[in-house]
Amino acid sequence: MAVLVVKSGGEAAMAEWRDSFAACAPGLEVRWWDEPGLRPEEVRYALVWDPEPGRLAALPHLRAVFGSGAGVDGIVADPLYPRQVPLVRMSIPEATERMGAYVCWAALSLLREGRRMAIAQAERRWDFVEPPYRASQRTVGIMGLGNMGVRAAAMLRGIGFPVIGWSRGRKLVPGVESHAGPAELGAFLARTDILVCLLPATAETAGIIDAATLARLPRGAGYIGVGRGMQQRLEDILAALEDGQLSGAVIDVFEPEPLPEEHPLWVHPRAIVTAHVASLPSRAERAAAVAAAIAGLERGEGLPNLYDHEKGY
Amino acid sequence: MAVLVVKSGGEAAMAEWRDSFAACAPGLEVRWWDEPGLRPEEVRYALVWDPEPGRLAALPHLRAVFGSGAGVDGIVADPLYPRQVPLVRMSIPEATERMGAYVCWAALSLLREGRRMAIAQAERRWDFVEPPYRASQRTVGIMGLGNMGVRAAAMLRGIGFPVIGWSRGRKLVPGVESHAGPAELGAFLARTDILVCLLPATAETAGIIDAATLARLPRGAGYIGVGRGMQQRLEDILAALEDGQLSGAVIDVFEPEPLPEEHPLWVHPRAIVTAHVASLPSRAERAAAVAAAIAGLERGEGLPNLYDHEKGY
Repeated sequence: MAVLVVKSGGEAAMAEWRDSFAACAPGLEVRWWDEPGLRPEEVRYALVWDPEPGRLAALPHLRAVFGSGAGVDGIVADPLYPRQVPLVRMSIPEATERMGAYVCWAALSLLREGRRMAIAQAERRWDFVEPPYRASQRTVGIMGLGNMGVRAAAMLRGIGFPVIGWSRGRKLVPGVESHAGPAELGAFLARTDILVCLLPATAETAGIIDAATLARLPRGAGYIGVGRGMQQRLEDILAALEDGQLSGAVIDVFEPEPLPEEHPLWVHPRAIVTAHVASLPSRAERAAAVAAAIAGLERGEGLPNLYDHEKGY
Repeated sequence: MAVLVVKSGGEAAMAEWRDSFAACAPGLEVRWWDEPGLRPEEVRYALVWDPEPGRLAALPHLRAVFGSGAGVDGIVADPLYPRQVPLVRMSIPEATERMGAYVCWAALSLLREGRRMAIAQAERRWDFVEPPYRASQRTVGIMGLGNMGVRAAAMLRGIGFPVIGWSRGRKLVPGVESHAGPAELGAFLARTDILVCLLPATAETAGIIDAATLARLPRGAGYIGVGRGMQQRLEDILAALEDGQLSGAVIDVFEPEPLPEEHPLWVHPRAIVTAHVASLPSRAERAAAVAAAIAGLERGEGLPNLYDHEKGY
């Protein structure tokens, strides 16, 4: 029986992982990462989020590593990661749908001043204010046109937002004008009223949402942070909210997480903070995706959604 | 010069109304409803929200009355309303777009538990919870398939929600299964996970959102109230939220408005209260629509969006 070790959600999540795999892959033996008596040589697969450096390299018969989220930066940060072992990014349609819905909710919350309405409700105050814009008057600019960015773009267009995109290479997405590379970043930002960061975590995207980037947006733009916390300079975002360069922000990713209780963003009157919930697929959905990939591999098929160490995503 | 009297937003709004009409209808003389020295016989047009009973009937040369919102219940409540004078409902594309965006925001807020996230933020609490459903798993049922209902349906479908509808007569709306009349209300409600009330205010729709209606929804349904406050029994909605029949509600319309400060809905952990902001078009947009209708009438054309006293909308 093939052994899969799991390190995602901690030991507390193991019962749910075991139940989920039992339902879709009864032939798989699911073991906790730190289980006493686990023999490294029997492990064939690993499903991990943030493995300790060197631990994967110590599994001599590992056939594949599965990231438990869309981003695998917590895995490739390991300098001893065994590059000959294929690394599979979690990409499941349900997660893409959830991300699209979150981005739409966030864009509409910026458009309709959701944070302001929530504060008014908390104060039992009838806050009758006309929203300043309609969806068709606010161009959403998406940084990162992977599966999630493309799906979010289609949903946003369905609500009436004009959508443009920016990515490393030029993408063909219906109805979405695509900008590519550093040379076109300025033109993209100048046209973006609501900026969405859906970039993968790479060395090039670290700190990309900083004062310089925000300054290139039109005054009063909104920001939606759903990529990775390491891409954002939160102090620059706070300063832009304070001085009016940003009119609002909806942020779901932080570095570190959880966002510390004393962080000023929690109480900012124009910022919505959520707890990295934008695109979490259920463990059952993720187990099913991993089980399907393992079954395919054992039938001799290739693996989907492979991580490219050169590109960094 | 034709005289238009205005009673919408109070005397404080008159400067904005005058500026708006000056920009699009310089030939129109815009007067405040209670202006001293206003002679009833010189008034040709009225733009009103809630005129005092009998006042319109006292304007002998009135050619048309314009409601300043989509609903004209505050006007036809007047038992002395002069029925020979055409009554025009405010219907402008911008308002339809705003309503669609609000309904999408509300549906996504129910799906993603926006109220719960807002409470967690207020408590600086990292509330990491997987949302229970995806958009494709929650059927939105729209009561009332006028311009706004049809536009909201299209936007909701763009985000991935299945959409069904219910109205007095059967409507043909692409991709939206239509239910008609009291006989099909039960079947409609039984299939509806998120109920949207966008009905006009009529004698038949008074109190339609009550315990009996809510009990016919699947357990744990959501409710979005964007029709009129008189259609809702708020105490029934609160009871359904308490016992779990409703998992959440987003309500923008109340009777009376503002919702009193001491009302328990303000602080309910599963209710979002907003201040009748869903579909307010700007005064400039409304002035432009009225000016265009008056210009058409003076050229001998018919008036758009006429209120039907028999149907009640």
